[in-house]
Amino acid sequence: MQKSFTEFEVLADRHDLIAFARDALQDAGAAHQAATVTAEVLVEADTAGVESHGVSRLKRYLSGLSTGRIDGRARCRVVVDAGSLLVVDGNNGLGPAVFQQATDLAIDKAIASDLSITFVRNSNHMGMTGWFTRRAAFQGLFSIACTNGVPLVAPSNGKNAMFGTNPISFSLSTRSDHVTFDGATGVVSRGKLEQLARSGGTMLDDWVIDTSGTPVTNLEEAIAGLEGGRGCAIHPIGGSTAERGGHKGYGLSLLVELLCGPLAGGPWSLHTHLPDRPAQVGQFMMCLKPDAVGDRAVIDTAVESMLREIREARSATPSNPVRVPGDRRRQTSSFRSANGVPLGAQTAQILMDISRETGIPFKFSTLEKGNRNEI
Amino acid sequence: MQKSFTEFEVLADRHDLIAFARDALQDAGAAHQAATVTAEVLVEADTAGVESHGVSRLKRYLSGLSTGRIDGRARCRVVVDAGSLLVVDGNNGLGPAVFQQATDLAIDKAIASDLSITFVRNSNHMGMTGWFTRRAAFQGLFSIACTNGVPLVAPSNGKNAMFGTNPISFSLSTRSDHVTFDGATGVVSRGKLEQLARSGGTMLDDWVIDTSGTPVTNLEEAIAGLEGGRGCAIHPIGGSTAERGGHKGYGLSLLVELLCGPLAGGPWSLHTHLPDRPAQVGQFMMCLKPDAVGDRAVIDTAVESMLREIREARSATPSNPVRVPGDRRRQTSSFRSANGVPLGAQTAQILMDISRETGIPFKFSTLEKGNRNEI
Repeated sequence: MQKSFTEFEVLADRHDLIAFARDALQDAGAAHQAATVTAEVLVEADTAGVESHGVSRLKRYLSGLSTGRIDGRARCRVVVDAGSLLVVDGNNGLGPAVFQQATDLAIDKAIASDLSITFVRNSNHMGMTGWFTRRAAFQGLFSIACTNGVPLVAPSNGKNAMFGTNPISFSLSTRSDHVTFDGATGVVSRGKLEQLARSGGTMLDDWVIDTSGTPVTNLEEAIAGLEGGRGCAIHPIGGSTAERGGHKGYGLSLLVELLCGPLAGGPWSLHTHLPDRPAQVGQFMMCLKPDAVGDRAVIDTAVESMLREIREARSATPSNPVRVPGDRRRQTSSFRSANGVPLGAQTAQILMDISRETGIPFKFSTLEKGNRNEI
Repeated sequence: MQKSFTEFEVLADRHDLIAFARDALQDAGAAHQAATVTAEVLVEADTAGVESHGVSRLKRYLSGLSTGRIDGRARCRVVVDAGSLLVVDGNNGLGPAVFQQATDLAIDKAIASDLSITFVRNSNHMGMTGWFTRRAAFQGLFSIACTNGVPLVAPSNGKNAMFGTNPISFSLSTRSDHVTFDGATGVVSRGKLEQLARSGGTMLDDWVIDTSGTPVTNLEEAIAGLEGGRGCAIHPIGGSTAERGGHKGYGLSLLVELLCGPLAGGPWSLHTHLPDRPAQVGQFMMCLKPDAVGDRAVIDTAVESMLREIREARSATPSNPVRVPGDRRRQTSSFRSANGVPLGAQTAQILMDISRETGIPFKFSTLEKGNRNEI
């Protein structure tokens, strides 16, 4: 009899995982290119330690494709291309594929004309926002991106989920350094709650409320309540009150709503993901060629010296050094690229189920738990 | 003998206050136009209830002018004007005057060519960021702006102030509605601490730390420690830990640093405001003409319906309705424009001192405390 995944650490090779996800997406009807990009985006999240945006999402993506709610063969359509502005209709394609196409258009325009601002409508969940800003950074650009999504976050003083988790990301590479920030404007993510549930952790009473506005402190209840509109809501960054800046988290979440909803020509999060309709997710990206606003070498030196001074800043607790956003993910990503990507028991089970249903082999190795020290 | 201001509520007419501030700034050497804009920006903050950015700052502005640290007669110089991009050198002028000129250039460019991105270097403290985004909104544009400043905020895990309070603002007017968000990326402002000290309130132990990283819980100590580099630091939005999103507040503060420091061609906050040198504050603005990305009437309707749905959202506590950012400030501003601007005892004393020194009359009326109900 097969042992349960919970007794092992499941390790997969990054390339094997990408191939598996790609094949499964193609099998569900996605075009080769859309499947490839989507697989890369999802697996990069697992590789970088952002499991909430990784292959555990694959089941949802596949179900979207096979029920026809997502069009895996859609091509983006450029609706507006004027000066530095682009508006792209994703035609309800796979989110990562849509936003990768939009990102590449945005990159091309910014390389050609120093700047681009791109609005995307009619897209789907696109995975880790930082994947796209990093893509622009690797082309020498400074970029900012965000997306709306399933309503999960309540406005300050409110008790109903109206906003997506609305992540904001920015990224810049210099000659010798790099920074990528990627953070939701909700105070906590579902992924973090699931991770706490697995590790036996506890939650703050300032994270999630139910429809009566009462704080939810039971992890299982919170996770279930955030699943598919069953009524719980997450507070914005800073929590429920202005004391720790909750009203500012709310304001920044609303900025994402404006950029990704009305200005992109689509609905705001509250009206995305309606039953039996395309999700109508909206996305935004700004790309800037730093060379256009100054001497690139001078800018790079200034950024490098700033990042160095931040990393060298004195820490309040020696075990927690001051980090530059993205440092840890980059370390994790290179370690896991070389040594394999660990998958939680739940995620391994999801992939195994997909493997059984599709006949696509899921390659992995196992390791007794606790026998591996990640950096 | 003159009664102390603390026994009265001091009320000033908005226009009288503007004239007073303008005359004082001119008397200290500012050009008429720079003095007028600066006075308007400062007084609008008091009128909207954002006293931390109001005429209480006048003393610092005047001292900057009279010592020559700020050049009240400086004119901005356009360094880059290419496509949708602008880089403006403020030539160490008064911050509000510099950023108003930059904003007007940004507005003109966005009206002419749908989009502008403007970087400002070599500026000074510019007052309430929302004043400038609103200015663009009143010209039919969607705008986002931010500024760096005196180092007051520590990065996550750090114990030294390195970042400015780095406010971010955005603003949009539709046919019948308006939204302006304006919030610092620090968890609390000095103004808020001063207000709590006056009202006998208390502070959270998750707001301010001293140079050893120890939480400061005494308001006077915190306020003194944040004055002129005496060593205290404010946490980012969300506070000291990732639990309430402090690492995200830090990331967004770093975004402001990149935009207003290296990309604007100036220092990041840590190296602004060095002794006996121009402050070298940096600023950023994006202006977008919504008409360029969609039908303006459709966008307006979508925004209006979103803002309405947010305001109508069920509140967790009936005494605190769900508000759209800027609603309260706008209400306060129209009430005070009609009924006078109340000034705290400290602020009234500052203006009276300026009046004595300059001979410029400071007109105000007094009211026994508690005899006036603000909305």
